[in-house]
Amino acid sequence: MFITFEGGEGSGKTTLIKAVNTYLKEKGVKTYVTREPGGSLIAEQIRHIILDNKNKDLSDKTEALLFAASRTQHLEEIIIPKLNEGYTVLCDRYLDSSLAYQGYARGLGIDVVLKFNHYALECLPTYTIYIDSDPKKGLERALSRGGANRLDNESLEFHNRVREGYLLLLEKFPKRIIKIDGDCNLDALIERTLKKIKELI
Amino acid sequence: MFITFEGGEGSGKTTLIKAVNTYLKEKGVKTYVTREPGGSLIAEQIRHIILDNKNKDLSDKTEALLFAASRTQHLEEIIIPKLNEGYTVLCDRYLDSSLAYQGYARGLGIDVVLKFNHYALECLPTYTIYIDSDPKKGLERALSRGGANRLDNESLEFHNRVREGYLLLLEKFPKRIIKIDGDCNLDALIERTLKKIKELI
Repeated sequence: MFITFEGGEGSGKTTLIKAVNTYLKEKGVKTYVTREPGGSLIAEQIRHIILDNKNKDLSDKTEALLFAASRTQHLEEIIIPKLNEGYTVLCDRYLDSSLAYQGYARGLGIDVVLKFNHYALECLPTYTIYIDSDPKKGLERALSRGGANRLDNESLEFHNRVREGYLLLLEKFPKRIIKIDGDCNLDALIERTLKKIKELI
Repeated sequence: MFITFEGGEGSGKTTLIKAVNTYLKEKGVKTYVTREPGGSLIAEQIRHIILDNKNKDLSDKTEALLFAASRTQHLEEIIIPKLNEGYTVLCDRYLDSSLAYQGYARGLGIDVVLKFNHYALECLPTYTIYIDSDPKKGLERALSRGGANRLDNESLEFHNRVREGYLLLLEKFPKRIIKIDGDCNLDALIERTLKKIKELI
């Protein structure tokens, strides 16, 4: 199984993945946790270019291609080998992030971004957990942690569009993407997600 | 006018571009010389990942996406603005390099690599000068200069396939790509190319 986690900034993805990982391990499932962009030595070099606040001139189009490059490297070096070894892979962000952020919110078009993700389409997640939450609150949480990157520093308007993008993807892929209401405390979010995970496996 | 220069390693592209640039300047043409991968601050960061000999695990697929990312950034930051300002842009390598190296020689497929180069297709060169020369001699020249990068260090078999790829592109785009026989000394190569350039402008 290949499970990805999606949502806006500060939606609680990282904490949630830890909880899901603990739950699955207790059930005897062999898990591997990873994240995007990055997840391998070369993919992390690409991540650095994307998120570096100094790279203000990075164009939206290049950004979309760099995410696709990082994903492809991560897929070939980490995700596919781990799946072949029988691991359940839990990944913080994947293809849907590119579709929501670059395809929809940046306005490049979901179809164009799908072209760049030619190889990711050959390895789609079994399930995608999408945490749907208020972008304003999430962004405040993300910024209060400090160390905001190039994408965290985008406007609230941009992050609202990201949410719209995710909701569009939910309509497009209703079987694969599972929406979890994230406007609650973290304990409730974890409880809701684990309930869903139990139904799925 | 947007003129690109293509060919295998050590084919004399760099010297040739200098000579063409001098010729055009003498004719009063406003020129701008650039190269790929790279050509802008961010594109050079991507170039570094691609050519770094330490990145032995860089997959062919990621390489193709990184070249497309570097090209897109270079296009938006440098090539398109310079063309709009009325410059004739001379570029050392462009789209056809990706098609010959990654699409054909690496075996990813020219159609797949064209997908990644969605934006470059919107800004095709007016003319492409392809220097056709013996890959073995070219490679020896390139390696004798020292400082060989990840691509220079590929096998002769690979560089032979690159040439086959270029010859295929020549059949595909006979109006845009102009083949110059490069199995001669540099002075003769320059003379042959300038003769062609005079015919074109």
